[in-house]
Amino acid sequence: MTPQTYLETRYQAILDDLMAFARIPSVSTDPAYAAGMRSGADWVAARLRAAGLNDAAVRKTAGHSVVTASWLGAPGAPTILIYGHYDVQPPDPAERWITPAFEPTIRNDRLYARGVSDDKGPVLIPMAVVEAFLQTEGRLPVNVKFLIEGEEEMGSANLEAFVAEHRDELAADFVLSADGAMWRADLPTITVASRGICTLEFTLEGAAKDLHSGRHGGSAPNPLAGIAAMVATLHEPDGRVAVPGFHNGMKPIGNAQRMAIADIPFDEAGYLAEIGADGPGGETGYSLLERNWIRPTLELNGLWGGYTGPGSKTVIPSTAHAKISCRLVPGQDPAAVQQAIAAHLRAVCPPSFRLTVDTPDHLALPYAIRDDHPGLTLAERVLTDVLGRKPLRVRMGATIPIGEIFSRVLGIDTVFFSFSTVDEDYHAPNEFFRLSSLRNGLRAWVDYWLLLGRMTADAFTI
Amino acid sequence: MTPQTYLETRYQAILDDLMAFARIPSVSTDPAYAAGMRSGADWVAARLRAAGLNDAAVRKTAGHSVVTASWLGAPGAPTILIYGHYDVQPPDPAERWITPAFEPTIRNDRLYARGVSDDKGPVLIPMAVVEAFLQTEGRLPVNVKFLIEGEEEMGSANLEAFVAEHRDELAADFVLSADGAMWRADLPTITVASRGICTLEFTLEGAAKDLHSGRHGGSAPNPLAGIAAMVATLHEPDGRVAVPGFHNGMKPIGNAQRMAIADIPFDEAGYLAEIGADGPGGETGYSLLERNWIRPTLELNGLWGGYTGPGSKTVIPSTAHAKISCRLVPGQDPAAVQQAIAAHLRAVCPPSFRLTVDTPDHLALPYAIRDDHPGLTLAERVLTDVLGRKPLRVRMGATIPIGEIFSRVLGIDTVFFSFSTVDEDYHAPNEFFRLSSLRNGLRAWVDYWLLLGRMTADAFTI
Repeated sequence: MTPQTYLETRYQAILDDLMAFARIPSVSTDPAYAAGMRSGADWVAARLRAAGLNDAAVRKTAGHSVVTASWLGAPGAPTILIYGHYDVQPPDPAERWITPAFEPTIRNDRLYARGVSDDKGPVLIPMAVVEAFLQTEGRLPVNVKFLIEGEEEMGSANLEAFVAEHRDELAADFVLSADGAMWRADLPTITVASRGICTLEFTLEGAAKDLHSGRHGGSAPNPLAGIAAMVATLHEPDGRVAVPGFHNGMKPIGNAQRMAIADIPFDEAGYLAEIGADGPGGETGYSLLERNWIRPTLELNGLWGGYTGPGSKTVIPSTAHAKISCRLVPGQDPAAVQQAIAAHLRAVCPPSFRLTVDTPDHLALPYAIRDDHPGLTLAERVLTDVLGRKPLRVRMGATIPIGEIFSRVLGIDTVFFSFSTVDEDYHAPNEFFRLSSLRNGLRAWVDYWLLLGRMTADAFTI
Repeated sequence: MTPQTYLETRYQAILDDLMAFARIPSVSTDPAYAAGMRSGADWVAARLRAAGLNDAAVRKTAGHSVVTASWLGAPGAPTILIYGHYDVQPPDPAERWITPAFEPTIRNDRLYARGVSDDKGPVLIPMAVVEAFLQTEGRLPVNVKFLIEGEEEMGSANLEAFVAEHRDELAADFVLSADGAMWRADLPTITVASRGICTLEFTLEGAAKDLHSGRHGGSAPNPLAGIAAMVATLHEPDGRVAVPGFHNGMKPIGNAQRMAIADIPFDEAGYLAEIGADGPGGETGYSLLERNWIRPTLELNGLWGGYTGPGSKTVIPSTAHAKISCRLVPGQDPAAVQQAIAAHLRAVCPPSFRLTVDTPDHLALPYAIRDDHPGLTLAERVLTDVLGRKPLRVRMGATIPIGEIFSRVLGIDTVFFSFSTVDEDYHAPNEFFRLSSLRNGLRAWVDYWLLLGRMTADAFTI
């Protein structure tokens, strides 16, 4: 039996595994889910051991644990570091889910549950592929090291320290990432760049307590009006970020880059119809792909204060809150951007309010792989074969901080080889994973390892 | 035994009554409290019957019920319509209460619970006073009609229809209101005017679902940024409301009026220290009392959208929401103001968003009693006697729609004779009622009825 046929005969068991994995509420950003995070790590370690990797272990970090495992029995063959994560986004708003976020349900050959696309489905694939090779051939064609973290949805804050501390143990020719996502459902793609990120949260306090809006209306400061006025100063009327210093260091966008993006088929009206918007966001003067891929953004992720229940409550609240995240492009420094925004907020805060700015350590630089990387070329070949069409090289509006971390700390590139697709609502209610992607992914990872096994580690030395 | 000594000997029983009343979660604005509203009405009717008013009844309206009762055994004496309400504000934010909102607790001669000051404590007083007269003298010195509603915290939407429908039954010489509040804790006051109100709620929708702020940041519209920009257009930089048409019809503010307000002792810095604010809200160019009493306001009462939990969530939410209430001054038409704001919002809504405006039927005109009303003069006399100092005539920033309703529908004025005090946090956590106010109120209502009983109904004919 070949690894491919092994996987075909075991398909239902793999799907059951994914559903068990998806039942675990491994939400990393909310301390209320601490138990789910521990269960998630344990589940991954157990699954890797079941696949035949006896050294699978849950490893402590300053935050959520990482899981590691390895198989190094192919001397001379390339060594890949397989990256993925077991943490997921919060399920809110819970009431918008058709079936509960942590009760995986199949509808129309799609599996619905929080985290199945990002990235429990994609990360399960290489575990199943290890098992397939070891059960049928007793060996893998390449050396593999697994590194599955639990803080991707928080910006991988403790991953860098772990990688730096275990630099020798994690040494590899390149990273093959199960995280990332196909850019389109109808077109195979490979992600070659991602934007960086920084986040920031702030609170505006007026009076020390909530007040009656009749009794105090006109004499007490209203932090909701205050925060709205402050937020309104963050963008120019044309959508450009208006924070002084925000664009500092940004590399100029070349004409060649803009032309390459213009060549990529992208239907702007179709995009807006797909997301259900009457018009776009972002900066006028740029195409929507440019706004997504090569322009930096400052987005409000949360804004709140006062009474939000049914009916009315005539209150002037004491406080108002906002959460911000920025996507950054080459040349921008995430910490400097965070500080620029904090300084701008302090400058525009009206005198009747007390401002508190929180600058979480949730930072990542932008990343791009070199154009001629052999692991990238191989991924193109395998995807062309499995999906019947040569994949497009695309950039990513979102952030995968690991590309930048592995490049800087281990000196190796990252090939994004994920089978999640951008439309799978992975940060929204009703996240799903196409089961066809699960099947294609299993096939592609087997092929990739078989072809990679014919190369030597030398091929990856620049 | 006199009614006064009866009340003194029965003080603990009256306090127990108030605690039982305050345990009932009669929140009118939130349908989740429907059972509490029914219990609240039943409790009031039972208390009035216990006081000796056998006709006490819970009466249906299109919304929450009203409770009525009467005693009409003093022919030739004046007839007063006693107004109050049994509904209370929502308890949110529940976590900010030192003791739970619906578990009344005495600390430092104050009773803490939602609604004790607004207006369960003040409205219980005339019920106890009826009992005191009937138990000691077998009769009241005046004719009384009780009208205790359940929608004051929602703008008394169905009160007008009830009053109009039962115009003959409710006919009286004037209204003596247990609702309203002393303006200051250290100075007796009588409220002679109140601002009107209108409310409005709106929702801004960008994409039809929540989106990942990396994948879609820059290309999708962000309704949080959109709503902040819209809210920021509602006021001029000097704090004046910037909505076209908002001030239409407003009577000019006379110099005499401004001078009378300037004569009232008011420590602006002390006020700001008391509410715990670093500076005021409202319009520059006006004193804080003017901003409160004679200037109209547009206040945000709620503003929300996106992720509000701990940590970060990289989401572009589908929708953002805002709740607004306006306080209006003589000449402004609440419905016209509501429409002016709705029109302004439509005009400033950016094209990428869908706007929904909800204009609830929560409207009230401003109100003022005539200066030489005998019921007002009598209230001044009684308060001078009970509190040892002549009360100041003050205006009210808040809204008591009943003044306007009784004036328009029954053709009678309203004397505000409440023993609640403005600092008792009645729309905020830890609402309390001073027990000294309960004792003073019981004494004052007895005196008021005794003195009023010496007048004839003729005195109230203009």
